[in-house]
Amino acid sequence: MLFLVGLGLSSHEDITVRGLNAVKRCARVYLEHYTSILMTASKEELEGFYGKPVVLADREMVESGCEEILRDADKEDVAFLVVGDPFGATTHTDLVLRAKKQGIVVEVVHNASVMNAVGSCGLQLYNFGQTISMVFFTDSWRPDSWYDKVLENRRIGLHTLVLLDIKVKEQSPENLARGRLIFEPPRYMSISQCCEQLLEVEEKRGQQAYTPDTPCVAISRLGAPTQHMKSGSIHELAEYDAGEPLHSLVILGRQCHELELEYLLEFSEDQERFKDQVHRDQEFFKPAPWVPPPEDED
Amino acid sequence: MLFLVGLGLSSHEDITVRGLNAVKRCARVYLEHYTSILMTASKEELEGFYGKPVVLADREMVESGCEEILRDADKEDVAFLVVGDPFGATTHTDLVLRAKKQGIVVEVVHNASVMNAVGSCGLQLYNFGQTISMVFFTDSWRPDSWYDKVLENRRIGLHTLVLLDIKVKEQSPENLARGRLIFEPPRYMSISQCCEQLLEVEEKRGQQAYTPDTPCVAISRLGAPTQHMKSGSIHELAEYDAGEPLHSLVILGRQCHELELEYLLEFSEDQERFKDQVHRDQEFFKPAPWVPPPEDED
Repeated sequence: MLFLVGLGLSSHEDITVRGLNAVKRCARVYLEHYTSILMTASKEELEGFYGKPVVLADREMVESGCEEILRDADKEDVAFLVVGDPFGATTHTDLVLRAKKQGIVVEVVHNASVMNAVGSCGLQLYNFGQTISMVFFTDSWRPDSWYDKVLENRRIGLHTLVLLDIKVKEQSPENLARGRLIFEPPRYMSISQCCEQLLEVEEKRGQQAYTPDTPCVAISRLGAPTQHMKSGSIHELAEYDAGEPLHSLVILGRQCHELELEYLLEFSEDQERFKDQVHRDQEFFKPAPWVPPPEDED
Repeated sequence: MLFLVGLGLSSHEDITVRGLNAVKRCARVYLEHYTSILMTASKEELEGFYGKPVVLADREMVESGCEEILRDADKEDVAFLVVGDPFGATTHTDLVLRAKKQGIVVEVVHNASVMNAVGSCGLQLYNFGQTISMVFFTDSWRPDSWYDKVLENRRIGLHTLVLLDIKVKEQSPENLARGRLIFEPPRYMSISQCCEQLLEVEEKRGQQAYTPDTPCVAISRLGAPTQHMKSGSIHELAEYDAGEPLHSLVILGRQCHELELEYLLEFSEDQERFKDQVHRDQEFFKPAPWVPPPEDED
């Protein structure tokens, strides 16, 4: 059997009791290690907690056929551990399809991920639109297709969760070209870089999907003991040092009600200014007021 | 300290190790018991597992001031357990605000909820729009404000998660009027009733937010050992007996890629028909094709 086990957000104890029991009975344990990281647990801590070795699975191992992972999974139990919930990334859907085609029974153990735990900023999850990913811009690659999605979300009043790029086990273009297996140190996008890229693309596209004054919430180390939130405008957060990774950002939509705003104010430096930013931003994309149809005078 | 602990979706073992450790050190334990239910664990099972009594907290206890729950929480540890993740419902944001105002430290232990575990149907969570709730229609109350939200989501190609009504500890209008504390048996909306209500409102509103042929996924007992998914059109699912609760429904948007469709086909009775329904439905709200601007002939 193949167990897909979500590890939750931060520590080794964020696994569920059911997930831990599954891992303990498995012959082999893999940890997906390229779409996210467990913030406060090392491979060694996990191995001590589970009482068995954990193999780090990089993108190549998972995306190139999964053969190693699925080997003998029809005869013995294998665990594939994923930070957050197992269905956070497309790749793992592919792993399930491959397993099923080989007649391997798959059991999923869910857990919290940024996609639902983001609710702890106080904004109702009901009012989030599509999620976007912000990648590190390079000199030659500054993709902005996410801009249209933010615009679509904000037109109908919805918040946008922005997932910030992480680079784990990446090769430099030179090392890649020369086939040298030398890897760059891991990089995690900061809140300020994300906000600078947002401002750059708004400047270029100019459709006012948002403005420098649009209110956001910066969410740092979600689910970890050092979790920290900060409310502010994009312009303000472009100057903000959020500390250690991981970070995410929420760009507010119009649908922010009083109780939600009250919650967000706790995270702002200047409550009056933030409240004012929210109220002014709510004027964007506001539906036209309802006007009664002319009375029929016949 | 007040611990807000998510219990996950189904069994007593879906709590995280960190959550269980927190519950074990608490002087009092409350279980929120009106926005959802834990599908395969009774109050008694939880009490046996935690080794202490669990108090069921109904809507009245939670929404009318939370005094009982927060009593002495500045001096001793109190746990408030929530099925799914603690930030699934507005009410609990209110509880956190009240606790903080009283100087009580709050710690949140996240867990899976339908809002992220719905990814196990194979559709990318990135492409979900706002979530809607479908309530039981009565003779005099057939609210349809959710219709506009489905329309907004589908216009930009997004899926809609539909949460189905549950009624726990409700009084009949007569018992309520007479002040008799007699409660109706719990009721959980079925997939077929939800689909009938969808069809009724489309008939009434007529803006083609969706059609009877729009493809959906019915998700039953998500996260439980008897979890079951079924892909089909709204019309087909209006006839479908999905068995025991809890149920949710996903109304597909246009953004369904080949790998996702392949996954959904596993849950359909007639794969060719479902594939055809998806492809025909994708024609709705399709953006106009890109036409190159006329060449400048000067």
